[in-house]
Amino acid sequence: MRPSRLRVALAQVNYTVGDLAANAAMVVERTRTAVAAGADLVAFPELTLTGYPPEDLVLRRGFRSASRAALEKLAADLAAEGLGDIAVLVGYVDDADGPRNALAFVHRGDVVARYFKHHLPNYGVFDEQRYFREGYRFVVVRHRGVDIALTICEDLWQDGGPFTVAGRLGVGLVVNINGSPYERNKDDLRLPLLRRRSAEAGAPVVYVNTVGAQDELVFDGDSMVVSADGTVVMRAPQYVEDVYLVDVDVEAARSPIDAPAPQFVDMTVDRHESADQRPSADREPIEAVCAEPLPYEAEVWGALVTGLRDYVRKNGFRSVVLGVSGGIDSAVVAAIAADAIGGEHVYGVSMPSSYSTEHSKSDAAELAERLRAHFRVVPVAPMIDQFVSSLSLTGLAEENVQARVRGTTLMALSNAEGHLVLAPGNKSELAVGYSTIYGDAVGGFGPIKDVPKTLVSALARWRNADAVHRGENPPIPENSISKPPSAELRPGQLDTDSLPDYEVLDPILERYVDGDQGVAEIAAAGFDATEVERIARLVDHAEWKRRQYPPGSKISHKNFGRDRRLPITNRWVE
Amino acid sequence: MRPSRLRVALAQVNYTVGDLAANAAMVVERTRTAVAAGADLVAFPELTLTGYPPEDLVLRRGFRSASRAALEKLAADLAAEGLGDIAVLVGYVDDADGPRNALAFVHRGDVVARYFKHHLPNYGVFDEQRYFREGYRFVVVRHRGVDIALTICEDLWQDGGPFTVAGRLGVGLVVNINGSPYERNKDDLRLPLLRRRSAEAGAPVVYVNTVGAQDELVFDGDSMVVSADGTVVMRAPQYVEDVYLVDVDVEAARSPIDAPAPQFVDMTVDRHESADQRPSADREPIEAVCAEPLPYEAEVWGALVTGLRDYVRKNGFRSVVLGVSGGIDSAVVAAIAADAIGGEHVYGVSMPSSYSTEHSKSDAAELAERLRAHFRVVPVAPMIDQFVSSLSLTGLAEENVQARVRGTTLMALSNAEGHLVLAPGNKSELAVGYSTIYGDAVGGFGPIKDVPKTLVSALARWRNADAVHRGENPPIPENSISKPPSAELRPGQLDTDSLPDYEVLDPILERYVDGDQGVAEIAAAGFDATEVERIARLVDHAEWKRRQYPPGSKISHKNFGRDRRLPITNRWVE
Repeated sequence: MRPSRLRVALAQVNYTVGDLAANAAMVVERTRTAVAAGADLVAFPELTLTGYPPEDLVLRRGFRSASRAALEKLAADLAAEGLGDIAVLVGYVDDADGPRNALAFVHRGDVVARYFKHHLPNYGVFDEQRYFREGYRFVVVRHRGVDIALTICEDLWQDGGPFTVAGRLGVGLVVNINGSPYERNKDDLRLPLLRRRSAEAGAPVVYVNTVGAQDELVFDGDSMVVSADGTVVMRAPQYVEDVYLVDVDVEAARSPIDAPAPQFVDMTVDRHESADQRPSADREPIEAVCAEPLPYEAEVWGALVTGLRDYVRKNGFRSVVLGVSGGIDSAVVAAIAADAIGGEHVYGVSMPSSYSTEHSKSDAAELAERLRAHFRVVPVAPMIDQFVSSLSLTGLAEENVQARVRGTTLMALSNAEGHLVLAPGNKSELAVGYSTIYGDAVGGFGPIKDVPKTLVSALARWRNADAVHRGENPPIPENSISKPPSAELRPGQLDTDSLPDYEVLDPILERYVDGDQGVAEIAAAGFDATEVERIARLVDHAEWKRRQYPPGSKISHKNFGRDRRLPITNRWVE
Repeated sequence: MRPSRLRVALAQVNYTVGDLAANAAMVVERTRTAVAAGADLVAFPELTLTGYPPEDLVLRRGFRSASRAALEKLAADLAAEGLGDIAVLVGYVDDADGPRNALAFVHRGDVVARYFKHHLPNYGVFDEQRYFREGYRFVVVRHRGVDIALTICEDLWQDGGPFTVAGRLGVGLVVNINGSPYERNKDDLRLPLLRRRSAEAGAPVVYVNTVGAQDELVFDGDSMVVSADGTVVMRAPQYVEDVYLVDVDVEAARSPIDAPAPQFVDMTVDRHESADQRPSADREPIEAVCAEPLPYEAEVWGALVTGLRDYVRKNGFRSVVLGVSGGIDSAVVAAIAADAIGGEHVYGVSMPSSYSTEHSKSDAAELAERLRAHFRVVPVAPMIDQFVSSLSLTGLAEENVQARVRGTTLMALSNAEGHLVLAPGNKSELAVGYSTIYGDAVGGFGPIKDVPKTLVSALARWRNADAVHRGENPPIPENSISKPPSAELRPGQLDTDSLPDYEVLDPILERYVDGDQGVAEIAAAGFDATEVERIARLVDHAEWKRRQYPPGSKISHKNFGRDRRLPITNRWVE
C-alpha cells in the first residue's frame, strides 16, 4: 500500500421516519455541500432514506419496495444534479432478497455496491431480528484508488465481524453508518470501541451517526473519524446537524481488484470498484472540527431538548401546554420546552385547588415570566367540588379527582387551542406509581419520564448556573428548586410522607429498574432490605399505569418503554 | 419396533406468570390425578413453572436461577409425595448454559433429560430471541421401552426441525408442549399442521397447550394427540382446565440405547433413559375425550370471557365497573364480564348528560337487570356544565369533556370501591381514533379492544340466541343491538356522520391493520381509493392514542399491542 488522502464528508443529519421523499431531497442538498467542499465521499447515517427505526413499517411490502425505489431515484437525481462524481454512502431498506438493513455505495448514477448489516440487535429497544435478514458478505469498494469497507452500526459492537475481516484483508478505510440512540455515558463507550475496531481493521474508521429524535429515541450524533493508531482525527459536536469535513490519511490499494481473498478470511468477500480510480486531488488539508463531548448535565439537557423539539416538530405541533404547579418537575419541563421551541410557544396553566399553597401559585407565575411563556390561572376548585359532592369522595379518591380535573382541563385547552399537552412526571415517580393516571399523567409527551428526581434537581441547578454563566436570567425560580417536593393534594402533604428521600430512592430504583437486580442483590449492596422490598413491590404494582403513560425521551440504559417489557399480570416476588 | 401402548395424561392447565411456587404446587396436584388414572407420563404446557410469556423477567438473573431451582425442588417433591414413578414433562427457564426455553423430563426424583427449544419465534407478539439462546440438540428419552422425543411449541411450526429428525431416527412418540395464544381461526391451522408433523415423525404427536390468559394473550388449550396416520386420538375441549387421558398406540424401541445415530441425521442426538423400562401395564383402554372445536362465535366469546376473567382474578380484583350507555359496546362488555365473574360483581354506571336520549338510559337499566348487575345513575351534567362554563368550551372540546367527566367519575368510583374499570372500545373505533383519550378510553382492561364492530354485533346476536337456545333470558336488550351506533356527544349524532358503515369500514381495516396492505393494494381489491386513503390516514394519526389505551384480549392475527409496533412519529404515506 502507499499513502494517500481522501476528503470525507460526514453528514450528521436529522431525518424523519417514513418521509422517503424529504429524506432523499435532504441527501441531495447535503451532498451538494460536500461537493462544494471538494469531498471524495459523503456518508449518511443508518437507514437514511426511511428514517430509523421504522419499526413495523418494514413489514409492509409497499414500504420496502418504496425504499428500494427511492434509492434508485436518488442515484439518478444525484447524477442529474451534477453530483455524480462524489461517492454517496446512504442507508435504506433493501427488499430484493428479503428485507435488509442496507448501505448503498452510489456513484455516477449507479448503485455500485450494497452492504447488508450483519449483526441485528434484538435487545433493549431494538427488534431488528423481527424485521431484517442478516447479511453475511463482506463488501469492499475501491474508489479513487482506496479500498473502502462498508459496515452498519451494530457491526461495530460485536466481536469477530467485518472489522476483523477488514484487518485480515487489508483495506484503506472502514465506513460505519449509525442510528445509535443516546444514553447517559454512552459516549464513554463509543470512543474506546472505535479505537479497538480501527486498530483491528488497521485503517481509519469513519463513524457517522444521526442527530435528532424519533418518538422516545434521541440521537446525539457524536460522529467521528478515528485513525488506526487511535487518534481522533475529527469529532462532530453533539446534537448539531451539519456536514463535517475531514481529510483522512489512508493507504491506497495495491493488489489487483480481482485478487482472490486469502484463505484465512472466513467470510465471502464482494469486491467492487467505482468508475473513478484517479487519486484524490492533492491540495491544502482542511482543518477538521474536533469537538469535546458535552459535560454531563449539558449533554442530558441537550438530549431532552432535542427529544421534545423533534416530537413537536415532526408531529406537526407548534406549541405545548402544561400545568405549572410551582414545583420543580413542571418548572424543568417548561424550561426544556422553552429551550426547544421558544417560550412564546409554551402555555403554562396554573390550576390552584383549595390545597394549593400561595407560593405554588406565585412560583408558577414567576416561572412563566422568566421563560416569556404564556400564563393563565384556571381555578379548578369549582369542578373538583362538584365531583366531590356529587360522588361523596374522600381520601385517595378525592386526591385523585383533583389531578384528573386538572388533566381534563389541560386536554380541553389542547382541544380548543391545538397545543400538545406535556406530562411532567419524572422516572422516580413513574417507577413507584406516584402519579395519578388520567390526571398528571395526561399528555402527548413526557419530556422527563426517563429522568430520576435527583437528576431533575441537578439539571435545574445546572440550567440556572449555565444561564448565569452566559449572563442570562436563570429560567427556574430558586424556590421551585429548594422547596421539599409535594403533590399538594391534601394539606401539608410531602412526597416523603410515603416515599423515602429521593437520594435513597433513586439508587435503589437504578439497580432494580435499570440494572434488573433482585431485592437480595440490592440489599447486599448495603440498602435496607425491608425498604428495598417495599420499593420493588411499588414498582411492580405500577406497571399497568406505566403502560398507559405517554412516550418521552430515553436517556437511560433502560427506559419505561420499548426497553422494559414486563408483564402487568406478574406474581414474581423474589 | 413392536406395538406397545402408553397411557398419556395431557395437563391442560392454567398457570400464573411469576408464581413459581404455586405453579409447581399445581404440577404436583395434577400429577396426582394422572397417577390415580394410571398414566405412564404426564405432559404440562410450555414454561409451566414460570408461566408464559414471562417477558423481561427472564432478563433477571434471580428469576432464571429461581426457575431452575424450582425444577430441582419439584423433582424431589414429586418423589417425596410418592409420585416418582410417572414421567413428568414440564417446561421451565434453564440458566446453566445461557437462558433457555426448556423442557425437563422428570422421573423418580431425577431430571432425566433437558430439551432446549430450537426455534425461537421473534414475530407478532413474540420476542423470544430477545430472551433465549437457541437449542440445537435432539433429545430423546426411553421410558417404559418407548423412545419419546421432546419438542416445544414453535418447533412444530418450522420445517426441517426435530420432527424431521424424529422421523429419520425412528421414535415411538413425540411430545410438543405449548404456550400457543388464541387467534381467530387458528385451530384451522393446528390440526393440519399436527397431521403433517406426525406423518413426518412417523409417530403419534402429543400436543399440550395451556388454558387461561396472561395480559393480552388468551390460551384456548385445544390439546390433542394425533397418530402417525393423522387420526385424532384425543382432543380436549377449548378453555377447560383439566387433565385429559388417552391410551396411545406406539412402537416400542428395539435398537440398543447406545446405538449411534445414522449418518443422515444432521443434528446432535442426546439419548437418555429413565429408570423404568417395564412395558406399560396391559389393561382395558380408557375412552379418550374427542371434543369438537367450538363454533366461531362461541370460540371468540370464550376467548373474551377467559381473557377478562384471568385479568381480574390474577391481578387480585373481585369486581369491575363500567359506564353503560345503552349502546352495544358497553352492553357486550358487561355481558362478557357477567359471564366471566358473575353479574353480582359487575357495577354498571349510567352517566346521562344533556345529550343522552331517554332510550339510552332505559336500555342501560334493562341491561343491568338482565345481567343481575349493580346499577346506579350518576348525572354528570353538573360537572360538565362547570367545565364548559369555566373554560368556555365548544365543539370538539365540549364533546370530549363529556367523555372525560365520565372517565373521571368511573375512576373515582374505582378508587372509592376498588373495582377494575373496563374500557368499552372496540377495534374499529381504536383503529380510526373514534374515542376520547382519558374519556371512554379510561380503564385497566379493554375486553373488546381487538373485536371489530361488526363482530361485536354478531357476538351480541349470538350470545342472545345461545341464551334462548338454553332456555335462558337473553342478556342484551334488543334495542341496544338494533339502534344505529352513536356516541351521543351532541344532539342526533351518529357514527356514520363521520365514518363509513362498519360493514364497509371493517374489511378495509382488516386489510390495512391486520394485513399490512397498502392503500393501492386495498383499492385494487375493489374498495373506493379515496375512502381507503382517508381511513388509512385516520388509522395512522390515532397511533398516539392507542399507545395509551389499556390492554385487552387479543383475538386477531394482529392486535393493537405487542403485535403491532408502529412509530407515532411517522410520515409514511403510500
